[in-house]
Amino acid sequence: MFFASDNTGPMHPAVAQAMVAADSGYHPSYGADPIMDGVRAQIREIFEAPEAAVYLVATGTAANALALATMTKPWDAVFCTPLAHINVDECHAPEFYTGGAKLSLVGTGDKMTPDELRAGIARWTKGDVHTSQRGPLQLTQVTEMGRLYTLNEIRALTDVAREHGLPTFMDGARFANALVALDCTPAEMTWKAGIDALSFGGTKNGCAGVEAVIFFDPAHAWEFELRRKRGAHLFSKHRYLSAQMQGYLTDGVWRETARAANANGARLAEGLRGMAELEFVEEPEANMIFATLPRREHQRLKAGGAVYGLWGDLEGDPEERLMMRLVTDWSITHEMIDDFLKLARG
Amino acid sequence: MFFASDNTGPMHPAVAQAMVAADSGYHPSYGADPIMDGVRAQIREIFEAPEAAVYLVATGTAANALALATMTKPWDAVFCTPLAHINVDECHAPEFYTGGAKLSLVGTGDKMTPDELRAGIARWTKGDVHTSQRGPLQLTQVTEMGRLYTLNEIRALTDVAREHGLPTFMDGARFANALVALDCTPAEMTWKAGIDALSFGGTKNGCAGVEAVIFFDPAHAWEFELRRKRGAHLFSKHRYLSAQMQGYLTDGVWRETARAANANGARLAEGLRGMAELEFVEEPEANMIFATLPRREHQRLKAGGAVYGLWGDLEGDPEERLMMRLVTDWSITHEMIDDFLKLARG
Amino acid sequence: MFFASDNTGPMHPAVAQAMVAADSGYHPSYGADPIMDGVRAQIREIFEAPEAAVYLVATGTAANALALATMTKPWDAVFCTPLAHINVDECHAPEFYTGGAKLSLVGTGDKMTPDELRAGIARWTKGDVHTSQRGPLQLTQVTEMGRLYTLNEIRALTDVAREHGLPTFMDGARFANALVALDCTPAEMTWKAGIDALSFGGTKNGCAGVEAVIFFDPAHAWEFELRRKRGAHLFSKHRYLSAQMQGYLTDGVWRETARAANANGARLAEGLRGMAELEFVEEPEANMIFATLPRREHQRLKAGGAVYGLWGDLEGDPEERLMMRLVTDWSITHEMIDDFLKLARG
Amino acid sequence: MFFASDNTGPMHPAVAQAMVAADSGYHPSYGADPIMDGVRAQIREIFEAPEAAVYLVATGTAANALALATMTKPWDAVFCTPLAHINVDECHAPEFYTGGAKLSLVGTGDKMTPDELRAGIARWTKGDVHTSQRGPLQLTQVTEMGRLYTLNEIRALTDVAREHGLPTFMDGARFANALVALDCTPAEMTWKAGIDALSFGGTKNGCAGVEAVIFFDPAHAWEFELRRKRGAHLFSKHRYLSAQMQGYLTDGVWRETARAANANGARLAEGLRGMAELEFVEEPEANMIFATLPRREHQRLKAGGAVYGLWGDLEGDPEERLMMRLVTDWSITHEMIDDFLKLARG
Repeated sequence: MFFASDNTGPMHPAVAQAMVAADSGYHPSYGADPIMDGVRAQIREIFEAPEAAVYLVATGTAANALALATMTKPWDAVFCTPLAHINVDECHAPEFYTGGAKLSLVGTGDKMTPDELRAGIARWTKGDVHTSQRGPLQLTQVTEMGRLYTLNEIRALTDVAREHGLPTFMDGARFANALVALDCTPAEMTWKAGIDALSFGGTKNGCAGVEAVIFFDPAHAWEFELRRKRGAHLFSKHRYLSAQMQGYLTDGVWRETARAANANGARLAEGLRGMAELEFVEEPEANMIFATLPRREHQRLKAGGAVYGLWGDLEGDPEERLMMRLVTDWSITHEMIDDFLKLARG
Repeated sequence: MFFASDNTGPMHPAVAQAMVAADSGYHPSYGADPIMDGVRAQIREIFEAPEAAVYLVATGTAANALALATMTKPWDAVFCTPLAHINVDECHAPEFYTGGAKLSLVGTGDKMTPDELRAGIARWTKGDVHTSQRGPLQLTQVTEMGRLYTLNEIRALTDVAREHGLPTFMDGARFANALVALDCTPAEMTWKAGIDALSFGGTKNGCAGVEAVIFFDPAHAWEFELRRKRGAHLFSKHRYLSAQMQGYLTDGVWRETARAANANGARLAEGLRGMAELEFVEEPEANMIFATLPRREHQRLKAGGAVYGLWGDLEGDPEERLMMRLVTDWSITHEMIDDFLKLARG
Repeated sequence: MFFASDNTGPMHPAVAQAMVAADSGYHPSYGADPIMDGVRAQIREIFEAPEAAVYLVATGTAANALALATMTKPWDAVFCTPLAHINVDECHAPEFYTGGAKLSLVGTGDKMTPDELRAGIARWTKGDVHTSQRGPLQLTQVTEMGRLYTLNEIRALTDVAREHGLPTFMDGARFANALVALDCTPAEMTWKAGIDALSFGGTKNGCAGVEAVIFFDPAHAWEFELRRKRGAHLFSKHRYLSAQMQGYLTDGVWRETARAANANGARLAEGLRGMAELEFVEEPEANMIFATLPRREHQRLKAGGAVYGLWGDLEGDPEERLMMRLVTDWSITHEMIDDFLKLARG
Repeated sequence: MFFASDNTGPMHPAVAQAMVAADSGYHPSYGADPIMDGVRAQIREIFEAPEAAVYLVATGTAANALALATMTKPWDAVFCTPLAHINVDECHAPEFYTGGAKLSLVGTGDKMTPDELRAGIARWTKGDVHTSQRGPLQLTQVTEMGRLYTLNEIRALTDVAREHGLPTFMDGARFANALVALDCTPAEMTWKAGIDALSFGGTKNGCAGVEAVIFFDPAHAWEFELRRKRGAHLFSKHRYLSAQMQGYLTDGVWRETARAANANGARLAEGLRGMAELEFVEEPEANMIFATLPRREHQRLKAGGAVYGLWGDLEGDPEERLMMRLVTDWSITHEMIDDFLKLARG
């Protein structure tokens, strides 16, 4: 009953096999391996973006921080929500890699509206040397609360950015989960909706540790390469990153794992609707569930062996409602879900 | 005939198997995996350092830059040689991670002497707010030219650092190669010789991408953890780093691969002594050979399929002598060496 | 009718005379001038802090950014209000000098309450490597909206910081204006109320460009000196900073100019109460007035030659209310105020 | 007998008077003062550069570091000599402001030759992501050892930079001293000789603390303004910087003070030629003298009240030769020089 995160499970067998297959003979290092050539071509095809610059790094924070730094000046404001991963979960990696840019918080939660974005941009007066300058718009898809931006919502936000000449970046740590939930194409969810660059997650969806950074405008390519090396994120034995991404992309594995993860999330959510005391914080839309229960219920679940994220201490007022996070990746079995539901329902 | 680097070959089977073995079930993320507990204990035992702080990252540059940053203030000079990897091969990662420290070059090549170090330290006047402040001593073992510091040489240099109250760091990207060449213990080559912290390489010696950072004084632990996360080098699925290191350390695999790499280097060097036109730049001491040949010989070798590092262009004056670098890891076969020697001798 | 800021007027004659007096003969450079020895002694006496470390810089932003950087790690959150000068008026100088710290906004305006501070601190989970670490509390006195923290309010906030082991910093760009308004001693408004360090403004209160940075704990001294030099804020002809501060402090000039500035503010505010359409945004407490008027009134005032800060464009809906800021320093004459009031009242 | 530096004397009366003249009434802040408009026009005229971007800061280190940062990427090498002020006297301000650029040392002293520069550039392989990228050429005029680059020498060096597409920067802390020594125009010593940007010193030549930064290509203007503000070097009461520069430039004061300083240096050097034991380290060319004497002579001079820079301790082997630095600004009187010479000759 391991629902703590989608970063705790194993590799998908196809990814593991690709790594094994790549593990013989000699490959040029530092990204010049031929597997990477194939990965680049695959991503360009999947995204219908034949000119895109494509790079691999091993962590989601590296993908976000390096990509944002390439699009952001040290005196710029990055427009993101208060709950954005870059704001609360990256220990100032964005500030470090940008040389001191400011995350300028828009809205109050995990999603922003065009009006909130407009207000956020208006906060910094154009042409005033004293304040933050206006920098990129950052969106997370799936959001940190397990929700989605629809294509129209993305477009409406990137339109606001475009009006002000600001670039746009998508944190796609759970890109595949969003894509299959929206049932659209990668191009539709990105450049056709006004996104300039993104991190394309592999780690949470069946890989060991690999994320692609994609710039639809290749003008950023060389600067990104320098930033990646300077940040110590260029792998010498790069083939092991390439191979993961190759296994992930080939034969649509990445969509299958995302579908499985979302289906697991839906099965879990459906089951939980039967619990009298449980309240969803947000209606689940992908593979994450945020809900509240009284503390005594958390005590019972944890004592029963359930592993999940909990906001607050296990000890305290038994009736106080505490928020939980349950995440399912592709590897979670129906048995695990059903065991948990059985436990949960008492 | 692939002698370009020790970062182009495959994983040692024991390392690959450890990764496969780790690839099932659910592990806590971000370094809390139980495999890491075992790795930490192994390293502490190997180094006879029960209090040491031990961390894993995926690249050698990350290990060096993060460890140095923990020991260095932004206004400090780091004392290293002109050929140090941190000076010429890391695209300013040390400057980036330290917030602008200066690499203050000592000596003229890949090794420094105590007198050169004394002169380097004397360059920066103590207590003068205008100049660089005196920071850590950095040594690379095996050096970037394939040479070794003897234990006495290390001690003589760390003694100079100690006289001035300066900490000491060893770049051990090829730590194992040095260790088996010197036939000493890890403790003797590090803390018993005055080394405060080191990067302990796995990638070049049989792993896919893992390096340990070891601080003999655990006072640095928490700051290092923050720096690692801020630098985006903390893996969520950390078990895949742990597993590599576990496979590498268990049953002395790491010493075996290093012995094999050095023996391959020796076999190659012995064979090359038979070449009339070849001159060694330095007498090889581990798994790297630096030698010069006339350009026409390089043209012949490259045309014959040999892959190695070359300083200079393939086109030009046929008699001009150009430097080559040949590196052997554990995976190089006697056949590959003998094929190359056959080609080399014409 | 120049009410744009307290950084637009001339030096007080006593300050100007001190500069002239210092302008002969030869002085050791870089802060070793004997005038600085006197200034240090004066400030220590004024603050009843015989051990305090005292430094001079030329701009308020330098004072804030350098002092904060000395108290803040790059991964720390600085707790300040959304309207803090460090957040909206320093073009990321705090982020630059700290190496990427985050300004974590507390409350909604120019002042925070202890409960808001507690909530702000609670946002960052202690011991979690992913989030911001808890760093210093920053207060501005006089606030950016012209208001004051009472001594009890300061103490209540620093008590919260102390509970969490966090250092405290006061931006005292208008320190003197606050002091004379509260009618307390410098020690009472700072270290006796739990403040660890402050910037002590001179520029806005009669000097040309000088601010003191004061650390009540001298342990920070040497690091600050290095940071000041590295930031290029150490003056070679330092005597001209020392002389300004000397002229400012001697014979209580600094309190007299602050009293005059506040009295001018009060005279102006009293006069404005007679304007039917004017509404104060905050009740003025020192030398700054924030009020709103319909745009047509601003058009009339500006056309009549009044110079002041205006939030919004002069062109637009004539009935829309726009905020104005009026600031008075010591040099503003009663005639200027009365002329403005005459104009304002139509 | 105060020859320690040209940063220890008073303002020239014309500069002091300009400050006094500026010290009344109300001026827009942050560089919008009308005096600055005049200064900008003056500098453009003096340099025959009607499009130049012109800014003022208060310290030479700020001028150098901010200007260089505008021309340099964090992964670039700045080509300068080992004795460059930016390398040995600015406590890593260049590294700080550039975000971690490397000062790549060319030659062995205070001047470089075109061949040395070519070798320095060749050290960093173009297009290699691992090494430093090639950044700006930095020259100091007058050099840190009191010597000059001739116009032909400057041109020869900037030609090398131009061949590689690298920008060029002149540290002109003693610009005027060099100009009058070479008897050329400001344009000839800068943009006509291939210089793209410079710091134009005022502080050492009669001002209290002001340096101009001049970019001949105004494309850098807005970025420089942001960098200046972010570095906390934008003065609110900017008129006091403007006024100094105005007084300095008007009626050729700046050339007169430089001529006087150089003449003082020449008188001092001529006098010292009569000392049997003194040896010049370099033939003096402007207002700085570097020479050696036995320690016993330094002991005698210091005991006699002479103030100057000394490399080494006053105590030790009486016969050991130690280097001294003597600097003369415009304010040094013939009496002071003659008194010193009398003392020196015993």
